[in-house]
Amino acid sequence: MAKEKKLVEKITSREEDFPKWYTDIVKEAKLCDYSNAKGCLNYLPNGYAIWENIQKNLDNRFKETGVENVSLPMLIPESLLQKEKDHIEGFAPEVAWVTKGGNEELEERYCIRPTSETLFCDAWKKQIHSYRDLPIVWNQWCSVLRWEKTTRPFLRSREFLWQEGHTIHATHEEAENRTKQMFQVYYDFVTQDLAIPLVCGKKTESEKFAGAEDTYTIEAMMHDGKSLQSGTSHFFGSGFPDAFDIKYLDKENKYHSCYETSWGLSTRIIGAIIMVHGDNEGLVLPPRIAPTQVMIIPIAQNKEGVLDTANTIKEKLKNVGIRTKLDDSEKSPGFKFAEQEMLGIPIRLEIGPKDIEKNEAVIVKRNTREKISVKINDLETKIPIILESIQKEMYEKANDFLNKHIFEAKTLDEMKKIAKENIGFIKAMWCGNPECEENIKSETEGFGSRCIPEEQKNLSKKCIYCGQEAKHMVVWGKSY
Amino acid sequence: MAKEKKLVEKITSREEDFPKWYTDIVKEAKLCDYSNAKGCLNYLPNGYAIWENIQKNLDNRFKETGVENVSLPMLIPESLLQKEKDHIEGFAPEVAWVTKGGNEELEERYCIRPTSETLFCDAWKKQIHSYRDLPIVWNQWCSVLRWEKTTRPFLRSREFLWQEGHTIHATHEEAENRTKQMFQVYYDFVTQDLAIPLVCGKKTESEKFAGAEDTYTIEAMMHDGKSLQSGTSHFFGSGFPDAFDIKYLDKENKYHSCYETSWGLSTRIIGAIIMVHGDNEGLVLPPRIAPTQVMIIPIAQNKEGVLDTANTIKEKLKNVGIRTKLDDSEKSPGFKFAEQEMLGIPIRLEIGPKDIEKNEAVIVKRNTREKISVKINDLETKIPIILESIQKEMYEKANDFLNKHIFEAKTLDEMKKIAKENIGFIKAMWCGNPECEENIKSETEGFGSRCIPEEQKNLSKKCIYCGQEAKHMVVWGKSY
Repeated sequence: MAKEKKLVEKITSREEDFPKWYTDIVKEAKLCDYSNAKGCLNYLPNGYAIWENIQKNLDNRFKETGVENVSLPMLIPESLLQKEKDHIEGFAPEVAWVTKGGNEELEERYCIRPTSETLFCDAWKKQIHSYRDLPIVWNQWCSVLRWEKTTRPFLRSREFLWQEGHTIHATHEEAENRTKQMFQVYYDFVTQDLAIPLVCGKKTESEKFAGAEDTYTIEAMMHDGKSLQSGTSHFFGSGFPDAFDIKYLDKENKYHSCYETSWGLSTRIIGAIIMVHGDNEGLVLPPRIAPTQVMIIPIAQNKEGVLDTANTIKEKLKNVGIRTKLDDSEKSPGFKFAEQEMLGIPIRLEIGPKDIEKNEAVIVKRNTREKISVKINDLETKIPIILESIQKEMYEKANDFLNKHIFEAKTLDEMKKIAKENIGFIKAMWCGNPECEENIKSETEGFGSRCIPEEQKNLSKKCIYCGQEAKHMVVWGKSY
Repeated sequence: MAKEKKLVEKITSREEDFPKWYTDIVKEAKLCDYSNAKGCLNYLPNGYAIWENIQKNLDNRFKETGVENVSLPMLIPESLLQKEKDHIEGFAPEVAWVTKGGNEELEERYCIRPTSETLFCDAWKKQIHSYRDLPIVWNQWCSVLRWEKTTRPFLRSREFLWQEGHTIHATHEEAENRTKQMFQVYYDFVTQDLAIPLVCGKKTESEKFAGAEDTYTIEAMMHDGKSLQSGTSHFFGSGFPDAFDIKYLDKENKYHSCYETSWGLSTRIIGAIIMVHGDNEGLVLPPRIAPTQVMIIPIAQNKEGVLDTANTIKEKLKNVGIRTKLDDSEKSPGFKFAEQEMLGIPIRLEIGPKDIEKNEAVIVKRNTREKISVKINDLETKIPIILESIQKEMYEKANDFLNKHIFEAKTLDEMKKIAKENIGFIKAMWCGNPECEENIKSETEGFGSRCIPEEQKNLSKKCIYCGQEAKHMVVWGKSY
């Protein structure tokens, strides 16, 4: 029993020290660790398996909308990066430069991609001649590199894994629709498959992506009340294609500008899963993306028939597509329980001699610890239902938390007071001036603008900071 | 009709100019093209979709043997790369160096991974303490970079996509078995899923991987008789783990060395698919990895009922898991036929008013051009059988070609004569001396050692070059 206690005690309590609780989970659940390549992560099997399921589910959603996958180089010639002015200004300070290949100094240096708008434009230039060649709707799953000074597992690291979708269209409207469509795909994926409720909308001018006309963002509230930007979809207008001189001929043989979008979601989202759903026993994984959905733990496994029954159940569950494992190691059941809880496996299935006598198994839900006895013959039909109920309960719990931590402020004083006494988001009116935006952030101890939601509420007619006419209701919050 | 002709005429005949035929297919089937990042490829949707299916099938085979996927950094600190002497000697001349991050010169430079043995050892060092932590069986799907001077699509490019598996074990025997197991996985995958017959065995001392004790290789014969090294599995002994000071405690609390393996297969294999199966009409894809298995081409599609029937068939086939597309564009059927052949889609399904009257569809097999009439109601059951027969026929055809182009030589003169008059591989005896190996290659216009097959045949008692006692029967061939 000593060992079991120790395993659980390793996690700092979430209430006591949230950042330490977070890094403890990352470490104890063996999700990732730091490499000797400074600021870069080793994504370990438990962490990478979550990413693989995220990839699978999100990729299916992409392909349903006509996305095609490609793979473009990791290196960008400096001249290419410089073609779009805002873009190079935004990224140049944080890229890594390759200056030597083999033993020779390079005539032109390359940066390792921090994002690939320039490479996609370069590839499209050869492909696009007439309206028949449009639209192009591409995506790649890859890693990118940004030379960050401070890093945190999953949330910020020099190299990180992501997908970046890039599309190019014949009209402004079509590109804008694609931007919104992918924003919706992210929203659906994160709320449905990751059980994470979201606040979403447009970014303000100062928060949008380098080179974009509009950036749409999905923002999730972590358990400490901070916001994690979880996915973004950008509308570029024709800035990039024009800079790369990509034009198309219409049916009347006239040249036209093209319109571009890009959209990305990264391994940061694993940080969100931890900080939205995790508890003091460890990870709590949403069933739809949990690498293992059911962990079978035999009780008194040396008694005759126990392991046989456990194995039979495993095979049955696997045959109906439930991701199932059996822990038949020599560790004690208590130790196994703690381990399964640490890893966030949605269902623990206990099966011992007494259960077998009654032709039953005991199911324990990770999220609520609720115990349910189920007839062995009913497991294949009941477990999928229980998994879906866990998914739903996790969303509802997180959504309750989110709703209880969104506040409204009509004056700056009110906002300061809320910011001081609470964690969470604050809705307040803003005039559109970036100076006011910056001042609000500094005077509320860090509540920056997160997004301008589509659904606006007229909380007052004036900007909370300067008193000029308000243009937008903004959601403000601290961020990762 | 002019357009159709043009499409097909674009491909140079395979007999006339094999290298040009190859690059024509790559271009016309839109598999990949060159990026502005010199020597790097854009893997375009048609090419990348083949890679995705290769990944899916091979990854499943890996996971059945207990492989776990991870993702390690793309950057290797120079000090880490230098830890294993043979390894750094092998790779240093061909790596790209990152010397600047953001605006600062780096104290220690990083190379972009040419392969990741060093990073895996670095990650394992933290994980391995006792025998309980072994074995570790990891793999990653990623890209690597080698500063090549001359490049060819898929066959040799600076950056290429691959998987690299790395494993570490408590005993020499277990590691050696894993090396052979993964070699077998490659063999099964390439012969069964890609329909490519293989010659395989160990590499000679001079041809093995930098730092390895043994390298096992699978070699495929292209249609020009040259060999393409298609996958390798390496046994490292304890060289790497010792260099990284990775030891484990056994049950008696004594320290021991660990034993390591690695194994990789890359996008080169797409080059093999083209050069083994392709013909003068374009690609011919093995059904098991073809992104589209059935292309439905409606005839007289404006006639009532044709498109409806075609769509119904498409949905039916998709529902039983057959990857099906319908080309309902305004192009002529002839043009569509040529395009489907260029892309190597295994089955063309023609459906027109006359077929519908007879309640039939016409199936045309890409590999043999054989036409088969099938009752519409039977399509779901017949097509999977036809796809498997195509898979089998493609293997048999390629295997016949391989067998007809393997020769045996007992003397150097005989070998020179065969090498001059034929394309293909030559089996001949060798003493084990690298000088003889080199001389044989230079005196036969490039027939280098490809592998030492496990199944040995004693062609003569003497080395074909020096006349000393022969140690091995070697398969010799020209290579890519």
